[in-house]
Amino acid sequence: MSEIAEVKLDHAIDILSRTPAVLRALLDGLPAEWALSNEGEQTWSPFDVLGHLIHGEQADWMPRARIILQDGESRAFEPFDRYAQFEASKGKTVEELLNTFEDLRLESLRALKELELKPEDFARTGKHPEFGRVTLGELLATWVAHDLSHLMQISRTMSRQYREAVGPWRQYLSVMK
Amino acid sequence: MSEIAEVKLDHAIDILSRTPAVLRALLDGLPAEWALSNEGEQTWSPFDVLGHLIHGEQADWMPRARIILQDGESRAFEPFDRYAQFEASKGKTVEELLNTFEDLRLESLRALKELELKPEDFARTGKHPEFGRVTLGELLATWVAHDLSHLMQISRTMSRQYREAVGPWRQYLSVMK
Repeated sequence: MSEIAEVKLDHAIDILSRTPAVLRALLDGLPAEWALSNEGEQTWSPFDVLGHLIHGEQADWMPRARIILQDGESRAFEPFDRYAQFEASKGKTVEELLNTFEDLRLESLRALKELELKPEDFARTGKHPEFGRVTLGELLATWVAHDLSHLMQISRTMSRQYREAVGPWRQYLSVMK
Repeated sequence: MSEIAEVKLDHAIDILSRTPAVLRALLDGLPAEWALSNEGEQTWSPFDVLGHLIHGEQADWMPRARIILQDGESRAFEPFDRYAQFEASKGKTVEELLNTFEDLRLESLRALKELELKPEDFARTGKHPEFGRVTLGELLATWVAHDLSHLMQISRTMSRQYREAVGPWRQYLSVMK
């Protein structure tokens, strides 16, 4: 099958609604050295990624969808702080972050469904502070792809903790490169 | 935190036992165009990866651990067929594969625990058909890293379905490159 060119609202909601449970299955109760280890300088641990996803619910996805619907291109989105989690997550546990993310995601999806978007709404436009005109459909697709890309990042980061431990199998595991 | 150099049995079991639930949360009931889409020629869909993980339980991990413990380096492992799933998964549903994988993984981990491995057992050696001497610890670490690398692959493959749909956000999503 080939690439999926069009965002479908029900598919987007289907995938977005899975993420809290996927992350819980992967991270809840995980030993700290797995949850807190990153891939080296300037990289993120699973804990850091959780905080970033939380900030996305608070400051990115639904807030930007509302700006598109209310103000169109007349009001640019607020720039998104990709490092907000380093302050916001301080002193919290993985379990707290999982709970917070689940609550916020549920609320985001409840609000998204309440908008009762129609396919033609996906063409409505807003203004990104860096690259200008974007559509509501692109925002929604990005929300989905962003979830999945951070799941990819978490699993890559965890896998690489065993880069040395796997010994000669390293050459078969492209993730280690 | 830095890389985890040593395999710990309890951590390995912890992570390996999560994978069926993680995959179920991500894939159970997913629309077919998401579960069956790959990244192009010679790449695997989430459905294909599930079949590969099933074959690993049947032919790779515990069978090889047993060879190490019983025969050491006197008997090389059987080569692993990385394409077995294309025949074995035919006609099956994602849900059937999830159930089969969960059953097999449970059985693998039951058998692994029954071995009552001690840290010194991790140095015991076997013979890989391609790269020769490997240790039981390396096999165990590879099992864990392999799970996580295929979770990475599934989430990357899914994310890339929206490569076009995300529009200008593509430049911010390194997964799309």
